[in-house]
Amino acid sequence: MRLVKFAVAAALGLSVAVGSFAAADSMTDAIKYRQSMMEVTGYNFKMMAAMVKKEMPYNKADFEKMASTVHTMSMLTQDGFPKGSDSMAAPTHAKDAVWSEPEKFNKDVVAFQKASAALVVAAKTGDMSQIGPQFKETAGTCKKCHDSFRSKSEG
Amino acid sequence: MRLVKFAVAAALGLSVAVGSFAAADSMTDAIKYRQSMMEVTGYNFKMMAAMVKKEMPYNKADFEKMASTVHTMSMLTQDGFPKGSDSMAAPTHAKDAVWSEPEKFNKDVVAFQKASAALVVAAKTGDMSQIGPQFKETAGTCKKCHDSFRSKSEG
Repeated sequence: MRLVKFAVAAALGLSVAVGSFAAADSMTDAIKYRQSMMEVTGYNFKMMAAMVKKEMPYNKADFEKMASTVHTMSMLTQDGFPKGSDSMAAPTHAKDAVWSEPEKFNKDVVAFQKASAALVVAAKTGDMSQIGPQFKETAGTCKKCHDSFRSKSEG
Repeated sequence: MRLVKFAVAAALGLSVAVGSFAAADSMTDAIKYRQSMMEVTGYNFKMMAAMVKKEMPYNKADFEKMASTVHTMSMLTQDGFPKGSDSMAAPTHAKDAVWSEPEKFNKDVVAFQKASAALVVAAKTGDMSQIGPQFKETAGTCKKCHDSFRSKSEG
């Protein structure tokens, strides 16, 4: 989170010189950043789901890489939601609750981080009886957070 | 790379049942995937550049996280360019040379992976006299690959 604060501070610093566009740009960048990390997450999730559902051959090394990528993304999530990166900055699926209920949002993100960390551990076993349930658990943390904090249409 | 082959195989498998759209969707997904990973890379690069140029206060932990994120993205790069995910599938900056000169492309990607791995090591020292040059080295590998394989406009 500190990272984002610095970015915003830098943008605001810059805005003294060049007007308010710098801050706006920073918020637009943050929105693009979180959308990109969600996209990377989703792509890997889709492939893991296909392996769990046996629609694609299971490959241990690939699954481990995907689980690890999703966990890395989970650790970036909070950096993508600086204050001000709401629908006033640019179209976004993020609900205002992200910023009005920060503790609840943080709790949901931490649940995702923990579940995806456990998925990395499960993936290393190569045992689908451990991987499957932990994959579902992780997917559940995505859904829980999206239900509360992501609107279906861009506002 | 195996990962991508499976995805493509799954898409092609699916396309037997539902026509050629599944394969096309898979290619469009791959293009979105690589664009998203480049976006995540770029966002972190921009912030690291600001710290190296002293436009933003240097923070060791933040810099380490950014270097590590960029290195993780570098390890995904090749997964984002399956055969067929060219301008025939959807607008893309990727030049045909990605697929017609795979060895050269691979060499450039590996250079990025190695340079960003060394940047992670440099970041851990917290010593800007080691970080600065390695950051420039890494940025150079981006530029080299983009010069050969990325067109400025989407084709």
